[in-house]
Amino acid sequence: MTDLPFTFTLPMPEVIPSNYDNHIERRLSDLRGQCLDQEAYAAMLAQENSLVYEVYEIKRPEIAGEILMGVSIVHPGKVGREFYMTKGHFHTVINTAELYYCLRGEGFMVMETPEGDTDVQPLSSGRVLYVPPRWAHRSVCTSRQEDLVTFFAYPANAGHDYGTIEQLGFRKLVVDGSRGPEIIDNPRYQEQAAREP
Amino acid sequence: MTDLPFTFTLPMPEVIPSNYDNHIERRLSDLRGQCLDQEAYAAMLAQENSLVYEVYEIKRPEIAGEILMGVSIVHPGKVGREFYMTKGHFHTVINTAELYYCLRGEGFMVMETPEGDTDVQPLSSGRVLYVPPRWAHRSVCTSRQEDLVTFFAYPANAGHDYGTIEQLGFRKLVVDGSRGPEIIDNPRYQEQAAREP
Repeated sequence: MTDLPFTFTLPMPEVIPSNYDNHIERRLSDLRGQCLDQEAYAAMLAQENSLVYEVYEIKRPEIAGEILMGVSIVHPGKVGREFYMTKGHFHTVINTAELYYCLRGEGFMVMETPEGDTDVQPLSSGRVLYVPPRWAHRSVCTSRQEDLVTFFAYPANAGHDYGTIEQLGFRKLVVDGSRGPEIIDNPRYQEQAAREP
Repeated sequence: MTDLPFTFTLPMPEVIPSNYDNHIERRLSDLRGQCLDQEAYAAMLAQENSLVYEVYEIKRPEIAGEILMGVSIVHPGKVGREFYMTKGHFHTVINTAELYYCLRGEGFMVMETPEGDTDVQPLSSGRVLYVPPRWAHRSVCTSRQEDLVTFFAYPANAGHDYGTIEQLGFRKLVVDGSRGPEIIDNPRYQEQAAREP
């Protein structure tokens, strides 16, 4: 990490940054409890703990005024009918936004607020998505062959709250339907909510 | 301006965003006092107040946690030996960074801190530049035919201080040399400094 200006390239079609500080690999086991079809999940995991997505991060001081950047790569695949996706998270400092610039692939960003507003936006090459403050976000790859690759940036003091989503799930899911990707209500989210007093 | 998530495309090769809130045009007259060759500047301006660069901005609340984004297009051209460039600025909230993702073209980002550190980084398609907090920045198009196009993003509370650069200039300039672009010390900056007590 330097205090000087720095550059890196996002070489197409590889899109792995020429310089990065951290490479995160998330596998099926990291999505434990998150998938719609828990039987399909258990059967797949018993076979192989497959790579679902990867993140390349550029390190900066995690303070307001700095910006954290990186590249997210969600691989094609499904657990039952549900497309491969990231864990998804709120920002710990909830009043912080995030932008995504889609470099390659096809998919969706699934989003929701603590108050229960939901939104699902399509992602494709050349499309910029602004996730306003307060919106949890999860990216989903719906291509059968191609990675969903996004460049992301957010205020460096944002932090990650994965716990809320791990506990409740997202209200909406993206599954493979008879005519392509379908956005459905998450029945497991409703079950969870129904358990509350 | 919406509170909901939103997307827009940066369609190649046009690179003008599909949605934007503000289109800024900066012409020769906006660079008054900034160019190395003041005679060439006056002669050009007498002929035509040419378009030097354009910015397409996406509006957001100008508060910490939000991110401002847009596209900057610096056209090819020169004033004397000096390549077309943006006015350049510090951020008013000086501890705020900015990122640039070069979509097309060739050029440089000229940068300096209030303490006199300088840096000049090349820009070309696919290259991401991180301008850390405290660094003033100006983009320069060095192609003879092609626009320098960058996607930029910065903390929405940053603000713009153009006045410091208008008064002092940048310490470094990019001019057309015998073997391509050359980075030189700005003699007009030194003159200005010499006028101080």
